Amino acid sequence: MKNIAYYNGKTGPIEEMMVPMNDRACYFGDGVYDATMAVNHVPMHFDDHINRIYNSARLIDIDIPMPKEEMKRILQSLIDQVEGDSLFVYWQVTRGVGMRNHPYSGAASGPSLWAWVRPNGMRDVYGAYRCITMEDTRFLHCNIKTINLLPAVIANQRAVEAGCDETIFHRGERVTECSHSNVHMIRDGVLHTAPCDNLILPGIARKHILEICREEGIPVVEEPFTVKELMEADEVFFSSSSAVTCRVREIDGKPVGMRDEATFARIRDAYQRKIKEECGK
Amino acid sequence: MKNIAYYNGKTGPIEEMMVPMNDRACYFGDGVYDATMAVNHVPMHFDDHINRIYNSARLIDIDIPMPKEEMKRILQSLIDQVEGDSLFVYWQVTRGVGMRNHPYSGAASGPSLWAWVRPNGMRDVYGAYRCITMEDTRFLHCNIKTINLLPAVIANQRAVEAGCDETIFHRGERVTECSHSNVHMIRDGVLHTAPCDNLILPGIARKHILEICREEGIPVVEEPFTVKELMEADEVFFSSSSAVTCRVREIDGKPVGMRDEATFARIRDAYQRKIKEECGK
Repeated sequence: MKNIAYYNGKTGPIEEMMVPMNDRACYFGDGVYDATMAVNHVPMHFDDHINRIYNSARLIDIDIPMPKEEMKRILQSLIDQVEGDSLFVYWQVTRGVGMRNHPYSGAASGPSLWAWVRPNGMRDVYGAYRCITMEDTRFLHCNIKTINLLPAVIANQRAVEAGCDETIFHRGERVTECSHSNVHMIRDGVLHTAPCDNLILPGIARKHILEICREEGIPVVEEPFTVKELMEADEVFFSSSSAVTCRVREIDGKPVGMRDEATFARIRDAYQRKIKEECGK
Repeated sequence: MKNIAYYNGKTGPIEEMMVPMNDRACYFGDGVYDATMAVNHVPMHFDDHINRIYNSARLIDIDIPMPKEEMKRILQSLIDQVEGDSLFVYWQVTRGVGMRNHPYSGAASGPSLWAWVRPNGMRDVYGAYRCITMEDTRFLHCNIKTINLLPAVIANQRAVEAGCDETIFHRGERVTECSHSNVHMIRDGVLHTAPCDNLILPGIARKHILEICREEGIPVVEEPFTVKELMEADEVFFSSSSAVTCRVREIDGKPVGMRDEATFARIRDAYQRKIKEECGK
């Protein structure tokens, strides 16, 4: 089929799928999510994403009763039903259904599992992208992948309005991450990326990039860096599950990076080999 | 009937109501809300709440095409169908239905209107309540009444777990507001309340309390105050549309306030008269 939606055991086309209005997702954003690409119907870095959603859930006191293997089985069965070599696989766990009331002890039915699977291309990793910057005004729990995404939505919209591809957030001078990706820079052959604290999401693509750097002998510094340092870096790139290594050529209208293609290309090409090994393409 | 839910023209019992899974509320929390009490089927401070939701929507680029009078008419017709002298009236406007994608220009169907009406008592304004404090880690858009409420949900849950009624947020030393109400203090006969900046919601009950103070000749200071000042105040109380003036007797296990009942009671009693005048009870 063209796409598929899932809600607590029920499936149907995304455009027709209905859910209870009283799911706490609908009025509190009370849930967490994860997403990856399925290439040749093989979900990339599946265990990493499964582990992360269980961890995100735990951090907001949602205890997912379903075993991880069962969640994987459900998602794989959805993926297998949709046509396409490149699918966007999105799923979320919410606190469940109940009459609106802030406290949740005994208030909800138990967690709801939602999923959407649909065709979606990955971003071209041979392109060069344009970004804007914005003050990071999000909450201080950016390490948790929650569905409270309004500031990210607005930031991404601002990028589109500026004819750009991503928004790079900074808190004061410190660069944190992008509206839906992590951001990194290369300086003097060294990869610099923000440390995994409460201001950034521990990206799965980020994790694999750091592994690649270790394998390739590229030194890594996980320390905060500034907007000024980013603007002066040899290379800038962002990463996410659907944009694994996207080189940046412009920030706020000024040219940046594009001065150490050799190092960037080692990371990019190793990542492409990794995808091919994992997904057979 | 016992309760009623509404979604874009469709109505039904809250427990049975279904909505499209692809409404941006469900996966981005992409919407704003408002809520009030209907006493004798008269929604309290109705115009204030209607004006606020249109303003909240505007602040996240949602242009509600429906005239305010039409929204009022729909909500009143729902209120009129539910039995009870004291009803909780909750409604939200979301960016609409569309395939998940952060940017919203042209991505959604146009705003969705959701509503829930159900019996709910107001908090006893003659009681005295217990609170805890928590560092305010929410986003920096607390002036906008969005449905990105997870930090408020968690904070309220923590109060309940501690056997308390509300959580008072502070950013460092500065008291901001509570998990779902504003907080005020009385010192030397003067009402102190946080200024309306991006760290607090411009509460409707707060607004009416300030009006009452002006009418009663109680001086008001709208300046930031600290946790220490709150702990040492003559009176502490919180306010919301369902807890208009709730006196606080304990914070983090320590007794607070309860030393200027005369001033507090002037505000409380004037507010009760205001409700009676507006709603006939």
